Amino acid sequence: MIKILRVNMKTKACDFQDVPAEYDGLGGRGLTSAIVGKEVRPTCTPLGPHNKLVIAPGLLGGTNCANSNRVSVGCKSPLTGGIKEANSGGQPGGHLAKMGIHAIIIEDIAPEGEWYQLELTKDTAKLVPSTVAGLNNYDAVAKLVQQYGEKNSYITIGRAGEFRLTAASIAFTDRELRPTRHAGRGGVGAVMGSKGLKAIIVNPEGGENLPLVDKEAFTAAAKRFSKALLEHPVCSQGLPNYGTAVLVNILHEAGGLPTHNFSAGRFEGHDEVSGETLNRLTKERGGEGVVAHGCMTGCIMRCSGIFPDKNGKFMGKWPEYETLWAFGPNSGINDIEMIVRYDYQCDDYGVDTIDVGAAICLFMDAGVLKYGDAEGCFKLMEEISKGSAIGRVLGCGAATTGKVYGRRRVAEVKGQAIPAYDPRAVKGQGVTYATTTMGADHTAGYAVTANILSVGGTIDPLGKGGQIDLSRNLQIATAAVDTVGLCLFVAFAVLDIPDALVAIVDMLNARYGLKLTLDDVPALGKSVLETEIKFNREAGINEFADRLPDFFYDEELPPHNVKYDIPEEELRTALTW
Amino acid sequence: MIKILRVNMKTKACDFQDVPAEYDGLGGRGLTSAIVGKEVRPTCTPLGPHNKLVIAPGLLGGTNCANSNRVSVGCKSPLTGGIKEANSGGQPGGHLAKMGIHAIIIEDIAPEGEWYQLELTKDTAKLVPSTVAGLNNYDAVAKLVQQYGEKNSYITIGRAGEFRLTAASIAFTDRELRPTRHAGRGGVGAVMGSKGLKAIIVNPEGGENLPLVDKEAFTAAAKRFSKALLEHPVCSQGLPNYGTAVLVNILHEAGGLPTHNFSAGRFEGHDEVSGETLNRLTKERGGEGVVAHGCMTGCIMRCSGIFPDKNGKFMGKWPEYETLWAFGPNSGINDIEMIVRYDYQCDDYGVDTIDVGAAICLFMDAGVLKYGDAEGCFKLMEEISKGSAIGRVLGCGAATTGKVYGRRRVAEVKGQAIPAYDPRAVKGQGVTYATTTMGADHTAGYAVTANILSVGGTIDPLGKGGQIDLSRNLQIATAAVDTVGLCLFVAFAVLDIPDALVAIVDMLNARYGLKLTLDDVPALGKSVLETEIKFNREAGINEFADRLPDFFYDEELPPHNVKYDIPEEELRTALTW
Repeated sequence: MIKILRVNMKTKACDFQDVPAEYDGLGGRGLTSAIVGKEVRPTCTPLGPHNKLVIAPGLLGGTNCANSNRVSVGCKSPLTGGIKEANSGGQPGGHLAKMGIHAIIIEDIAPEGEWYQLELTKDTAKLVPSTVAGLNNYDAVAKLVQQYGEKNSYITIGRAGEFRLTAASIAFTDRELRPTRHAGRGGVGAVMGSKGLKAIIVNPEGGENLPLVDKEAFTAAAKRFSKALLEHPVCSQGLPNYGTAVLVNILHEAGGLPTHNFSAGRFEGHDEVSGETLNRLTKERGGEGVVAHGCMTGCIMRCSGIFPDKNGKFMGKWPEYETLWAFGPNSGINDIEMIVRYDYQCDDYGVDTIDVGAAICLFMDAGVLKYGDAEGCFKLMEEISKGSAIGRVLGCGAATTGKVYGRRRVAEVKGQAIPAYDPRAVKGQGVTYATTTMGADHTAGYAVTANILSVGGTIDPLGKGGQIDLSRNLQIATAAVDTVGLCLFVAFAVLDIPDALVAIVDMLNARYGLKLTLDDVPALGKSVLETEIKFNREAGINEFADRLPDFFYDEELPPHNVKYDIPEEELRTALTW
Repeated sequence: MIKILRVNMKTKACDFQDVPAEYDGLGGRGLTSAIVGKEVRPTCTPLGPHNKLVIAPGLLGGTNCANSNRVSVGCKSPLTGGIKEANSGGQPGGHLAKMGIHAIIIEDIAPEGEWYQLELTKDTAKLVPSTVAGLNNYDAVAKLVQQYGEKNSYITIGRAGEFRLTAASIAFTDRELRPTRHAGRGGVGAVMGSKGLKAIIVNPEGGENLPLVDKEAFTAAAKRFSKALLEHPVCSQGLPNYGTAVLVNILHEAGGLPTHNFSAGRFEGHDEVSGETLNRLTKERGGEGVVAHGCMTGCIMRCSGIFPDKNGKFMGKWPEYETLWAFGPNSGINDIEMIVRYDYQCDDYGVDTIDVGAAICLFMDAGVLKYGDAEGCFKLMEEISKGSAIGRVLGCGAATTGKVYGRRRVAEVKGQAIPAYDPRAVKGQGVTYATTTMGADHTAGYAVTANILSVGGTIDPLGKGGQIDLSRNLQIATAAVDTVGLCLFVAFAVLDIPDALVAIVDMLNARYGLKLTLDDVPALGKSVLETEIKFNREAGINEFADRLPDFFYDEELPPHNVKYDIPEEELRTALTW
């Protein structure tokens, strides 16, 4: 039986409940947003008792569909003040799905200073005092593994989440039981911390693949889907060999790699912090290093390489492109080992690499650190875990750092930091940053596809033409993909190989006994977005908040010397249909 | 000739311009909001080149009308993200009016790190490199007085404004050339700092009372107005003898004096930090202490006493009620001398006492300081001037401090701290906090009048009935009063003595040759509010942001054990007509 688990942090009650019919056809982001939209008052205090934290695998979670075990986390965001969905790879998504847990809803708050962990099996759920409070993610998970064993997966927050910092993330363990996968954005870790929930122990024993209404049809469609992924060069070559860091040199070439706090679009040291360098050093050093590593069971794109130190020992995961960018080009640092260490710090303390990395460059903009000061950056990062004033500011991300240090060039939208694609040189991304319900989020409508990669068509990244429509269509499609539980990177295949999307629809029909057509996909995406837009409006945020900071309109970005020029009134049409 | 002075910080151009006809009948807040509404794009970056800082005396400034020389400061607020008007006493308002300067509009920004001061006479304006950059207000003013003389008045920012902290204020010198009067709220000092403008030297030489269309009628009405002020016990007895601190014991009695971060409505040490104690110590110590001191020429209510130290030397001005409350009851401190010193620090560094005081109690809530730690508070305050991380957080006010320290009981609306009247025990104030265009602001619709003081009627402060209408009417009236340039405290007389308002209308007619009736006053107020509401909507803030933090609805306030209970949907009707 598929169930919803409702956990009350005040009463400690853990109730398995039937899934209401109104949530039929929803999973992942679609489900977290529907539950948040229905159960959370949009004006509530994000860190207070009335917010809820919802964790949900997607519609194709717990099946043999490739890359379908992402897990979504939803709540009202303490960072943006609006609705939030952040999703993650790692093992818990697949485990929860196979255990028949459609969603976990964490309600109310524990008394201040009390910390609990949720022991979860297929049929039982129990809150017990946490044995790992005060620990960061690596130590916490190691201790939990000792206590509960290696067959589980773990969901934890680090000290940043305990401190309720607005860039705090939630960590999900990977296949090696490391806390390397994160629901990173929007301060979901602060919400988990605000509830007094330090960890979830996911014991998948007895879980199994979910029932399929038409097993044969499902298996056939799943094979076609895998084939499409393996055919697409980005999915089958670029990502496994270079990780998402494959983008460093590409964005540098395109002149859209934000450098020194969005002052230029190219970075001299780009090659030193690129996916090619990750690949080369990993191969050269061998040992525990891995090229083409999957972060979750069922992944066939395997972008999450493991980076070895000079002795071949585990040093950290391959940083994502956005992490490399934030600490690298945008902060003037070209030392890839140091960036691996910052990434490890972020994973350990439990913070979003994008927002914290973007905050680092604002400390540089303010003169607290010098651009390129790799050692100074490391020390400043350590302050997050110490809970000092400066560490808390950093751990609250770019918007708060910009405010505290009186910066005027703060690349954020609705309080969330703009990621690694300069909107002036990748104008479709600018539309997405400005208009998504999530605050600046590159994944919400990844226009880099047609703007830079010629995936799903080609649109001049420097021009205005077609960007609104591109972003709108991608945002709608992404809301659907996030609902299905698929890794966003399947989008490369979906956009270029028509059968990939057909295969997804076929799998949904075969899994649930539905008769969806391709036309139902955008309808699903729109419906998810409408729920999110309504929440944001009723949280006090209207469409005029859909804008980019002035400096993108005022300052030319080298080398193309281009400004952002899509008028705000046009941006406000992106999420209308 | 009445003129508008337009100062461009980038080009250094200073142009005297005619007042456009569309601004006829506007001064003070009505004028600053009209100019900001017309010239500032609501989505602009508040600390960037597109924001403007507007300084304007009121419609009856530069006349013999009592208490009419307030000065308004308007801009887009870096604290709230919406429109802002903060007004101040002191000498510059009257000087500017008599010099025929209807408004100063400060545009664009100087290059980063360059500081200027504006030398202003009746007919000339010139930007010159500042001689006082890096100094706090007391030293800056002292040096400017040495350089420019004692007949001028001065408008300055302290280091908090230079740091562009969001609780930074703008200081206006009083009659003794001390920087004790402030446009305190909303971070107007950060906007002045963002422009690179450190000081304005106002040389009133040659200025004179403004022409009156009907001198005789004006003089007669001005006398009636003064008579009303002198007849009203709050204006003629309470305020001169005890300052605004007359309210400490009154609010304690009413159970609406927020204590220990809004945890209770009474404070054991209330008498030690009351207006009565200010009065007694000032009289006992003598020397430079003054009871019944006016902050500006033409003031007949004289609430701004001077507090002497044990040797009779100037120690600071009498703190306002809200200052005494923020550092006193709400922070558990009952040492009035220490509070005078914090107030001096705020005046010197140039920060809003309300938002910074409200931040202090959040440091206590977070355990960084202990409640009642008077010495620790003083040292923490010093950090503001040092520009350390913790000092910057404090200088950004309560909302930022609450965010950085992960607090959930943060008394703020739209990013601005809630002042010294607990909304649960003074429910009309709660309506004003939630709904004013300014972020939580007690002055925007001072329902303490009918709720507590039985001025302008009597409405049960603990009940819901009539509070929405009360707040609406007061907000409309206040927008008009702020436009006329009158000190808000005239409202006590206006609300109780019918002829006071008639006298104001008569003065406006006699000054400008108009035929206004009493009915035109609310029309003016509504029109000002409509301009402000439109700005906020187009800045991305809609009516759902008109709410109070959850804890006022969730927690009972002793001693009346009352919660806030006016539903959000009713609050959203407060600014509709």
